[in-house]
Amino acid sequence: MKAAIFKGPGLIAVEERPKPEIQLPTDAVVRIVRTCVCGSDLWYYNGDSPHDESGIGHEALGVVEATGSAVRSVKTGDLVIVPFAYSDNTCPHCENGVQTACVDGGFFGGGELGCQAEFLRVPLADGTAVAVPEGKYDDAQLASLLTLSDVMGTGYHAAVAAEVKPGHTVAVVGDGAVGLSGVLAAKLLGASRIIVLGSTHAPRHELARKWGATDLITVRGDDAVTELFELTNGVGADAVLECVGSKTATETAFAIARPGAIVGRVGLPHDAPIDAEGTFLRNIGMRGGPAPVREYLPELLEATLRGDITPGDVFDYVTDLEHIDEAYQAMQQRRAIKALIKVSEV
Amino acid sequence: MKAAIFKGPGLIAVEERPKPEIQLPTDAVVRIVRTCVCGSDLWYYNGDSPHDESGIGHEALGVVEATGSAVRSVKTGDLVIVPFAYSDNTCPHCENGVQTACVDGGFFGGGELGCQAEFLRVPLADGTAVAVPEGKYDDAQLASLLTLSDVMGTGYHAAVAAEVKPGHTVAVVGDGAVGLSGVLAAKLLGASRIIVLGSTHAPRHELARKWGATDLITVRGDDAVTELFELTNGVGADAVLECVGSKTATETAFAIARPGAIVGRVGLPHDAPIDAEGTFLRNIGMRGGPAPVREYLPELLEATLRGDITPGDVFDYVTDLEHIDEAYQAMQQRRAIKALIKVSEV
Repeated sequence: MKAAIFKGPGLIAVEERPKPEIQLPTDAVVRIVRTCVCGSDLWYYNGDSPHDESGIGHEALGVVEATGSAVRSVKTGDLVIVPFAYSDNTCPHCENGVQTACVDGGFFGGGELGCQAEFLRVPLADGTAVAVPEGKYDDAQLASLLTLSDVMGTGYHAAVAAEVKPGHTVAVVGDGAVGLSGVLAAKLLGASRIIVLGSTHAPRHELARKWGATDLITVRGDDAVTELFELTNGVGADAVLECVGSKTATETAFAIARPGAIVGRVGLPHDAPIDAEGTFLRNIGMRGGPAPVREYLPELLEATLRGDITPGDVFDYVTDLEHIDEAYQAMQQRRAIKALIKVSEV
Repeated sequence: MKAAIFKGPGLIAVEERPKPEIQLPTDAVVRIVRTCVCGSDLWYYNGDSPHDESGIGHEALGVVEATGSAVRSVKTGDLVIVPFAYSDNTCPHCENGVQTACVDGGFFGGGELGCQAEFLRVPLADGTAVAVPEGKYDDAQLASLLTLSDVMGTGYHAAVAAEVKPGHTVAVVGDGAVGLSGVLAAKLLGASRIIVLGSTHAPRHELARKWGATDLITVRGDDAVTELFELTNGVGADAVLECVGSKTATETAFAIARPGAIVGRVGLPHDAPIDAEGTFLRNIGMRGGPAPVREYLPELLEATLRGDITPGDVFDYVTDLEHIDEAYQAMQQRRAIKALIKVSEV
């Protein structure tokens, strides 16, 4: 099969690799229909984080090709969403809704578990993959379904972690694909005002507005904090979604939270310390981490199928597996918010 | 009037000071009936934090002597509980239940606002003091009512911040007066298992057990973490109350939280950094800060008057204002969990 292989910073090659096979009775093998490039894939592409010379990518929508003898919840021919983390969905942490801490689980995106490929072995298929109801889905719907494997679930986790409630004024730090998905999530959870702190990129503004952003702040650091307090009559945000992970974004996120508010973090912290005493004195909370996408999949799948949300709008660049390196470049150069890779048809 | 005056580390003197008067129409003057010594008063007594040579103490139960012309909710003769922070109870932060962030508020415990005295001026009386229903209260009840000015409300804040829910396995880090109050609060919120991580002091164990602790861990650091995971089948605690604020206690609190759990902090952090990445990877949250005691007063007053809780049991040392320095010593030397000061009779 063809698979995208990380060759080093700045280079993703498409090479032949053995087609994955069932290794354990709990495995499934999936033919990838759609995959995409994540902002976190760029950490490797930019040389900011190390990555083996191996498969890459952790977002997948595909059709089940084969299942191990123990697999019960998905069957050959099912269209399935594969979260970026695999999980048994039965251990105490899964039962508690934190499948990214599954005692038997792990993460896609490296070694033989790269999703930017023609086929993928899915460990613990019953606890990981979620079947989409049978039906005909057009390109836009397939794109939306794909987002439920990571980016939409991650934005949703930020909003759930920040405990967004109906009527809240929500601040979203970051207007990348995750931040924008956070806007959509905040809207879905009933936020009445959504203030996005991000870039000056017009396409991001357009999508943010479409998904429910009421205000955009494009300055950074202290200026952003000042502007947010002006917008909120000096009060601050009822809930804050931190969708970047950098030092500045983290400082801003905690600074704009009103006393008692929670910063929902989904940006992996990169040298971004938390002010233990400052947050304490202001009664600011934090929650979040790697999104338990599997937990949210049923509700987000339902919302997507009903058409309540169209998270696939986040893709503004489409190519095929052969040209995936160009997709990385487009995202690296901020010509694309998020790149969709068409691998095969349903 | 007589007032306890901080003279420097290790010395509290009782001196004559002018009796406080109404300064603003929103003030009340209260004759103190009961006050007490807080663990945080010991920071000054031990020389760990600076304090002016002035009044000290921030916990008070008293009888209203006089009210300013604008005061409506309490009247002369009322027995009132005075939270350690004063607040207007009408600003956006108060409305949001975080009275310790009141835009017009402040804290008792220094200058002319020391509660370890015969009389106290209470700023913003309407938004601060809460009247106890008329009636006869015995010594034990008065002691319990006094705890609602800080220690019980603070323990309760830890439990609320940690989002303790019925059936939870709750870990309480610290078995000082606040930690013990946290045990009582966790029980009140429906915890089914309460694990206290604390000292080897028998009186603390006894009270912890009385108030609902099911397990006691008396080792520290890594050993404590190991023991907690053994007690919870490797899962960790559903909610953690951090009631100390030291580096070791903070590290332990975050280490024993199960993925998705929240550490409810009420111990002011003393050189106790938070691991931004470690907490993220495990989806551990944190909330808390200075307790909005005023917010919890109505419900805790009701629970106390019904006899559901007897938080005054925390006092195991009683003296009068004249001998308050001995009370500080008793707490410093851990001969007392918490010292009650009888200033006058109702």
